[in-house]
Amino acid sequence: MAIEDVKSRPRDSEATAKVIDLLKERFSDRVQTGEAFRAQHAHTTTYLPPQLPDAVFFAESVEDVKAVVKLCAAHKVPIIPFGTGSSLEGQINAPEGGISLDLSRMDKVLEVNAEDLDCRVEPGVTREALNEYLRDTGLFFPIDPGANASLGGMASTRASGTNAVRYGTMKDVVLAVTAVTADGEEITTAQRARKSSAGYDLTRLFVGAEGTLGVITSITLKLAGIPEKIAGGVSSFQTLEDACNAVIMTIQMGIPVARIELLDAVQVKACNAYSGLSFPEMPLLLLEFHGSEQSVAMQSEQFAEIAADCGGSEFVWTANAEERAKLWKARHSAYWAGRALAPELSGLSTDVCVPISRLAECVAETQKDVEREGFLAPIVGHAGDGNFHLLLIFNDKDPGEIARVEDFTARLARRALAMGGTCTGEHGVGQGKKRLVAEEMGGAIGVMRAVKKALDPDGIFNPGKIF
Amino acid sequence: MAIEDVKSRPRDSEATAKVIDLLKERFSDRVQTGEAFRAQHAHTTTYLPPQLPDAVFFAESVEDVKAVVKLCAAHKVPIIPFGTGSSLEGQINAPEGGISLDLSRMDKVLEVNAEDLDCRVEPGVTREALNEYLRDTGLFFPIDPGANASLGGMASTRASGTNAVRYGTMKDVVLAVTAVTADGEEITTAQRARKSSAGYDLTRLFVGAEGTLGVITSITLKLAGIPEKIAGGVSSFQTLEDACNAVIMTIQMGIPVARIELLDAVQVKACNAYSGLSFPEMPLLLLEFHGSEQSVAMQSEQFAEIAADCGGSEFVWTANAEERAKLWKARHSAYWAGRALAPELSGLSTDVCVPISRLAECVAETQKDVEREGFLAPIVGHAGDGNFHLLLIFNDKDPGEIARVEDFTARLARRALAMGGTCTGEHGVGQGKKRLVAEEMGGAIGVMRAVKKALDPDGIFNPGKIF
Repeated sequence: MAIEDVKSRPRDSEATAKVIDLLKERFSDRVQTGEAFRAQHAHTTTYLPPQLPDAVFFAESVEDVKAVVKLCAAHKVPIIPFGTGSSLEGQINAPEGGISLDLSRMDKVLEVNAEDLDCRVEPGVTREALNEYLRDTGLFFPIDPGANASLGGMASTRASGTNAVRYGTMKDVVLAVTAVTADGEEITTAQRARKSSAGYDLTRLFVGAEGTLGVITSITLKLAGIPEKIAGGVSSFQTLEDACNAVIMTIQMGIPVARIELLDAVQVKACNAYSGLSFPEMPLLLLEFHGSEQSVAMQSEQFAEIAADCGGSEFVWTANAEERAKLWKARHSAYWAGRALAPELSGLSTDVCVPISRLAECVAETQKDVEREGFLAPIVGHAGDGNFHLLLIFNDKDPGEIARVEDFTARLARRALAMGGTCTGEHGVGQGKKRLVAEEMGGAIGVMRAVKKALDPDGIFNPGKIF
Repeated sequence: MAIEDVKSRPRDSEATAKVIDLLKERFSDRVQTGEAFRAQHAHTTTYLPPQLPDAVFFAESVEDVKAVVKLCAAHKVPIIPFGTGSSLEGQINAPEGGISLDLSRMDKVLEVNAEDLDCRVEPGVTREALNEYLRDTGLFFPIDPGANASLGGMASTRASGTNAVRYGTMKDVVLAVTAVTADGEEITTAQRARKSSAGYDLTRLFVGAEGTLGVITSITLKLAGIPEKIAGGVSSFQTLEDACNAVIMTIQMGIPVARIELLDAVQVKACNAYSGLSFPEMPLLLLEFHGSEQSVAMQSEQFAEIAADCGGSEFVWTANAEERAKLWKARHSAYWAGRALAPELSGLSTDVCVPISRLAECVAETQKDVEREGFLAPIVGHAGDGNFHLLLIFNDKDPGEIARVEDFTARLARRALAMGGTCTGEHGVGQGKKRLVAEEMGGAIGVMRAVKKALDPDGIFNPGKIF
């Protein structure tokens, strides 16, 4: 299903074959051209059709990355950086062929500076592996997009997730990256200091660039102290507006909530079925508080008052780890719970983000649109950020339905835009949202293109994405 | 005093005269060429010698900015954006002449979205004016670099200051900017949503670009709720190491301190004399806590324990607004208190930032260097960020002393670099730190240059800065 045409350059098969030969000569079986490998590296958790690379190269060091970049640059062959393949907008597809640069073997935690609450990791380290590594330090890495993504990938798509309302997004926790640029050399975008005014913010230029400006080879990350206490709970609301109002009041009062997630009735029903829960099939807020024993109690009580004011069900909070784990497991399974509603159909996961004051309105209008179209589309949102997801369940064999889904997602994005929002809060642009981002950014797209051209004049880095 | 040679292009006097004539024709007395105006726009709170623009243009609207940019671009005449002139590294100097673009009349608060905790302002609004405007909303703008700088200027130098340890720097609170680029058109870098993955992070590319990529015409800012309660206090320490250890423990324990400032004995002495205080002439920490009544009490008590553990004097905290105001007025006068130590001499204010675990070591080594050189140089730092300032008092008429000051600041920067730090935490590069930033960034400077060239091919925006 083509949400938009990908403007492909003709592949230069000869150049690609040459690069593959040279790589094989040097790296032997770390270069793979079999269809299974290639298909696996184009298979994304997305509705977009896979576009296979010509080969997969497994990098094990910065020197490997430099070598492949130099070779590909010399022959103008595309490089598609690959972490775990969990991106949602076709970021790892290879519309012009080329080399999928698999970074999953670069999975070392290079340093942990506990005193400074930071660490440096290779791009293939996943967020769960990092947290496992940190287990005895009293520190943790808070960004949690759901999937066990690689940190290189998370930096590249500017990932965020449930904890972002308190701990920020990848833009906030990445202190620096090293990256191999088009000349095959490695640059360091910043030092380990907490702040700097030393020239352009190249760190944040690479964060969110989706691998189109170079290959990230290490990431320096801020860490957080594991909270002394974690508490959480749920509250059901009669209407979405009520639930959203509770979120707005929570944020406005400055309650430092760690997670505040909104599920609509359809999603609650799906989660009940999938995870064996029995929440009322009404809009639900799912919360988590981090802090001292005193502080989480205070936060929980403050929220309970807000929930009551907004007509929510009694907010019962618990610091019991098992109960909390069950809740969040259900939240993390929301995507699969949605897919399980109609396993024979396809699913398109899309996201938008609006100023929080417009969240209720945007969700409500979107629900009406869903009803009008007769779609099945559970909604789940990082409500504290004004960010919500829609999982459109549809038949990807039916061209008419595909067209309706395209129109629907475009309307959703334009609805968000009209409210001062963005067509993607955290999934990125990839192939799927190029047209919508162009609408959103207007003239600023020209500036992005100029930056791209300046840093990657031959367009070898992840072509066909963002623009 | 030339810390480094500015590579000047020859001025094209004819082109400049032409631009000035055309501007005068259209804008009459909003174009000024008298020496008083020009000198005022090159006079900075810096040790660098003023370099006057050829004319000053007072913009009153985005249309004005577009007009002057189009004209200057057509004739390749430099434009130097000007806010209040409080930058510290020669950012507003005009080494190649051209037009100082004074934005101080663009001083409207364009919108306040209290529900979303954000606002949009013109670049000439100062931080104090914004907070005055917000007085009745229950919100405030937290970034406080000391000077009453314009928000356009603060964005451009990626300013921070005393509150950054809790509220972040300009990179964290700017949600979006509009900017006029080299083609004379205005772009919008992002929407009002709290987060976005819609392509390259142009917002943070303009934040910290020091006016070298375009002219910021509005800034969308995150605001914070005025805390229910503010408390603060001081504690004196036997040694710098003890004071720094108290800071490290505070940050590691996750106490959400709003301000934690370090003054060395020399600075304490200067502040005592200048502000009529009587602190022991020992290293001093000055703190502020924001939160609920309960929370500031808890934070204050936690810090008191830490201070005691680190051998600090008894930490007496107060929520009395008058007492706090006196303390922070003294802190904000630190620069002038330092200058008052030897009013006949010149002062060079420089800053570095290191990982917090290295702060004590970096400050102590720097103090030894100061002693060796026989300089007078009070130290004051945003200790929670690992950022500190040195005010070097020196005779700018003595070439030998100038050379010693240059060598000293270079040693300071390299000391910070060797500890994983940066040569500037918040003052920016301007003219003064170009050589040091080049050392710090290595190959990344090439990427910055490529971005600059892509966005400003004729080098009209604030030439001679950063690079």
